[in-house]
Amino acid sequence: MTETISGIGEFGLIDRLRTLIQKEGAQTPGVALGIGDDTASIHPREGYEILVTCDSLVEGRHYLPAHTTAFDLGRRAMTVNISDIGAMGGTPLYALVSLGLQGKTPVTDVENMYRGFLRELKPFEASIIGGNITKTNEINFIDITLLGEVEKGKIVRRSTAKTGDSILVTGYPGQAVGGLRLLLESERPDELRDNPLVRAYITPSHRAREGHAIARSGYARAMIDTSDGFLADLGHICEESGVGAVLVQSDLPSNDDLRQAAQLLNQDLYELILKDSDDYELIITCSAVHVEKIRSVIAGVSRTPVTEVGYMTETAGEIRLIFPDGRMRNLQPKGWDHFKK
Amino acid sequence: MTETISGIGEFGLIDRLRTLIQKEGAQTPGVALGIGDDTASIHPREGYEILVTCDSLVEGRHYLPAHTTAFDLGRRAMTVNISDIGAMGGTPLYALVSLGLQGKTPVTDVENMYRGFLRELKPFEASIIGGNITKTNEINFIDITLLGEVEKGKIVRRSTAKTGDSILVTGYPGQAVGGLRLLLESERPDELRDNPLVRAYITPSHRAREGHAIARSGYARAMIDTSDGFLADLGHICEESGVGAVLVQSDLPSNDDLRQAAQLLNQDLYELILKDSDDYELIITCSAVHVEKIRSVIAGVSRTPVTEVGYMTETAGEIRLIFPDGRMRNLQPKGWDHFKK
Repeated sequence: MTETISGIGEFGLIDRLRTLIQKEGAQTPGVALGIGDDTASIHPREGYEILVTCDSLVEGRHYLPAHTTAFDLGRRAMTVNISDIGAMGGTPLYALVSLGLQGKTPVTDVENMYRGFLRELKPFEASIIGGNITKTNEINFIDITLLGEVEKGKIVRRSTAKTGDSILVTGYPGQAVGGLRLLLESERPDELRDNPLVRAYITPSHRAREGHAIARSGYARAMIDTSDGFLADLGHICEESGVGAVLVQSDLPSNDDLRQAAQLLNQDLYELILKDSDDYELIITCSAVHVEKIRSVIAGVSRTPVTEVGYMTETAGEIRLIFPDGRMRNLQPKGWDHFKK
Repeated sequence: MTETISGIGEFGLIDRLRTLIQKEGAQTPGVALGIGDDTASIHPREGYEILVTCDSLVEGRHYLPAHTTAFDLGRRAMTVNISDIGAMGGTPLYALVSLGLQGKTPVTDVENMYRGFLRELKPFEASIIGGNITKTNEINFIDITLLGEVEKGKIVRRSTAKTGDSILVTGYPGQAVGGLRLLLESERPDELRDNPLVRAYITPSHRAREGHAIARSGYARAMIDTSDGFLADLGHICEESGVGAVLVQSDLPSNDDLRQAAQLLNQDLYELILKDSDDYELIITCSAVHVEKIRSVIAGVSRTPVTEVGYMTETAGEIRLIFPDGRMRNLQPKGWDHFKK
């Protein structure tokens, strides 16, 4: 018989997870007190700011249990948060995991989800120091709070882009949402497991190493991750910085996988790249003279491609797309808004 | 027409809440970056540890929309977390609020819930520095992460109780769960709004000021809040400290409200006090010679009653209740376990 959470109870489950984390997790420096008391406690390092972010995944909305394993789901939920820390230029350190679970959930699913969390935390020697488990009747949710650190004065904000800055983007935005749509439209989604776009959806990359290196270099003016979609997040930079942007369509990064998916899905390639979300790439703005510096800083930590796609303008809040024939179009900075239809 | 979240969208709602927090919230020192970027950022104070805790309330399980207003719900959700910080001896500082909401939720409900959060944070000059809003289809949930600080070396754990320690408890555990049951059993719950036990359930007290003062005094050996129930949390102290406990039944704190409720509910008074949860009182253990010191430390910050109810023993994990006639009974440290039936 499958062992369920109702079977072992809340405290039984917490004991199991605590053991798993002690055995399989990293020993992060600075933890004064981990799981097992009313709160966790940390000793912050001198010379560093503490970054804090939280993000949740809700079953049926942010993940489809039929298309992902508990382990991959754990990886993805943690990646989403690591991406936010990286987008400020920081390094992840301490996670708190708050789960809403149905009583019938198998204990091994929860353990495997935790293994997924740890899989993403370990390369940073980051660990889980606390959390909460609560029962829900209908749907499961995962809410993670992640703390990180960044050297004082090195943080890179979204509100500090300047007119004339070059706009860079890492990787290939659009891959994950392409993968999701392929899954949803396929009659045999199981056979798509190894499709690179589907992989990008199930276990997306974060660019936290790149973000941290960029922040340390001091060459970036503004930075954000593409969690709301390329255009929406470029829109956030524009709004918070009081500037506008021009994107050069022919410079937008695409690859064979994206082009094939656009064709299969009967969707405009550039809509796929610009609109919806689910990738966790970085948008970086920097003075035009520092573009090559940023490229070489990123090349120093990974082989992630970096593409220059346009520049910031002084027309606050306006984003324009230049087509190959020279025409221009105003774009609505629209991406993933959970509530709008 | 009622303005709903679907109507103004995720980003519209975030803008509204950000304005509300700026206008009605406290200006907490140490906030380098509040709401509006990929993460928040704080400058920790030298000489302090950072405490972190998270706790969620799920609609239908932890609160009944019919019996509470959005404002009171916000107060309660924040109190639960403040209590955890206080139980370590710390002071709350920075909150992140993660909400799962249905699209049909009225915007004013969310705003009033935030007013409830701020109502509880303000006395500490604590504030909301970030969060996340996500759409759910069926039920609403509130997940709060609260950061606090405590002077280095002053933290009071649950795992450091010693054989022979006196056991103290604040307030009247059992009030809130009594109030909940009165609500559930009543045919006219509306008329119970001013019942003191119902008030204790809807807007429970935390003892964070008392906890912080106790920690600073250095007189406590162990401390925990009663969020899982008096007996269950005393059980946590026993388990983590490797000791046992004896409770003197005639010393357990009760008042007229509790006695009346027990009678109305046809329930044993001591079961009401010891078992279920929903109060956020403190259990403190200290050397017998420091009981009066602890009393006077608490009296220095509030009029919360403090009762000595027993002592710690060397029999690990065993909790016994002494009846007035001298008989003893072994108790199961059983409280609120979400998943166990």
